[in-house]
Amino acid sequence: MTGNAAGAPAAGRLSLNQATVHKLGLAQAVDLCVRHDIPAIGLWRERVAETGLAAAAATVRAAGLQVSSLCRGGFFTHADPAARAAAIADNKAAIAEAAALGAGVLVLVSGGLVPGSRDLPLARRMIADAIGELVPVAREHGVRLGIEALHPMFAADRCVITRLGEALDLAQRFPADAVGVVVDTYHVWWDAAVLADIARAGERIVSYQVCDWVLPLPADVLLGRGHVGDGMIDFPPLSAAVAAAGYHGYVETEIFNERVWDAPPDDTAATVRKRFPLAF
Amino acid sequence: MTGNAAGAPAAGRLSLNQATVHKLGLAQAVDLCVRHDIPAIGLWRERVAETGLAAAAATVRAAGLQVSSLCRGGFFTHADPAARAAAIADNKAAIAEAAALGAGVLVLVSGGLVPGSRDLPLARRMIADAIGELVPVAREHGVRLGIEALHPMFAADRCVITRLGEALDLAQRFPADAVGVVVDTYHVWWDAAVLADIARAGERIVSYQVCDWVLPLPADVLLGRGHVGDGMIDFPPLSAAVAAAGYHGYVETEIFNERVWDAPPDDTAATVRKRFPLAF
Repeated sequence: MTGNAAGAPAAGRLSLNQATVHKLGLAQAVDLCVRHDIPAIGLWRERVAETGLAAAAATVRAAGLQVSSLCRGGFFTHADPAARAAAIADNKAAIAEAAALGAGVLVLVSGGLVPGSRDLPLARRMIADAIGELVPVAREHGVRLGIEALHPMFAADRCVITRLGEALDLAQRFPADAVGVVVDTYHVWWDAAVLADIARAGERIVSYQVCDWVLPLPADVLLGRGHVGDGMIDFPPLSAAVAAAGYHGYVETEIFNERVWDAPPDDTAATVRKRFPLAF
Repeated sequence: MTGNAAGAPAAGRLSLNQATVHKLGLAQAVDLCVRHDIPAIGLWRERVAETGLAAAAATVRAAGLQVSSLCRGGFFTHADPAARAAAIADNKAAIAEAAALGAGVLVLVSGGLVPGSRDLPLARRMIADAIGELVPVAREHGVRLGIEALHPMFAADRCVITRLGEALDLAQRFPADAVGVVVDTYHVWWDAAVLADIARAGERIVSYQVCDWVLPLPADVLLGRGHVGDGMIDFPPLSAAVAAAGYHGYVETEIFNERVWDAPPDDTAATVRKRFPLAF
């Protein structure tokens, strides 16, 4: 890796995704960011709900933090029409929450195969239909929907959108002010087309998340992510491509890992901050 | 799934990849195929070496079995030039073994990141260079090299070639009589472009392997494969695309799974045979 070069952003672009300090409540996570001079936070709906939406928004605002994204909407793939309708309603609520929190982006984890079905195209159609229903609501609230491609090992159970290029093809069916894509290094680093797809994404990139691919994978592959620099991902080419595509917003560190969660949160925040330049 | 339809092959196209009965020696695996009226076998070099090449070839021939492939060559990505040269030499030996066994195909698992490096393009260049060196040897022996795309969860440590389309792009840099691609359902099922890539592959398809994607993934993700029908893969569209592309050779069942390996081999062979029609 080339490490921190002339074009690297200052820590002023760092955002701590709340999932990285999974055991903290919202107010504690906000305090942690303030203590470590991290200017932005990526929030999770569950933690916002615990605090209450208005109180959460007030807490973040009072701390002077920016909200880089709200996680997460999606999970659109259901056999039962009532369940699909409930998912749409829940996503509309999430859009309104994002707006109330000042988050410009709602991250979408779109959903895996429809329960009882092996039909990938069916699942993909349901996702496209659902996003189409959400577009007017997103525009009304000034929130962009960020379609996240998840690593293909999650295709069956979490997200059938498995490549950045696929997420982008889907996003481009909708207006750019309403639907974009999330680039998460963990999910897309392996793809021979990823740099070309980032370039093609351009203004559609609404969020950039970094964490590392660490081996061996843990028993629960959801929890295998590592701090930047602990794994196998070559971040600088990805970050350079994201910058060249025109994305200059916050860069979220989002790490799902039991050992990271068990570490003292101040240690985690310090490590996130210290490693951040290695991503560029 | 539509199940077995008019176009489904008879069990006459079934091949048992020897890895599915991992604990059997070559002669035992051959006997198992004969007992279960399975007309072909996919061999592994380690088992061939145990038996001795000439004896292995004679055993298979005497049983009247066809050899659908030899597993495996590859692992070309090494920092040390001497290690790269050793890999080339070993692959040349594997090609000669395939020819002696009557296997028309040597399956290549190309290798992960170069040790000590995070440079994916470097690893990919090393693989292309190595295959280029092997082409004349493959042609001389009448053996085709089958580039296998592995699931992206193996990109770092086993194979940086992660999509069928990528394997095909690489294969097309070489003559079709020397280099093709392996389609393994487990590795490629999630890819939105897979049907188009199979169509594009056409005569480049040199092997078709089936096994299922089963959740949850086990602690060692190498061993998560299931019998056809036990998991999430919709086989008929994949098999139809492979047939439409012009591949009418043997279809190998290759399952890495501790529980399958612990089952009585006759039960495993019977299940493989019984489930085979579900793949079409």
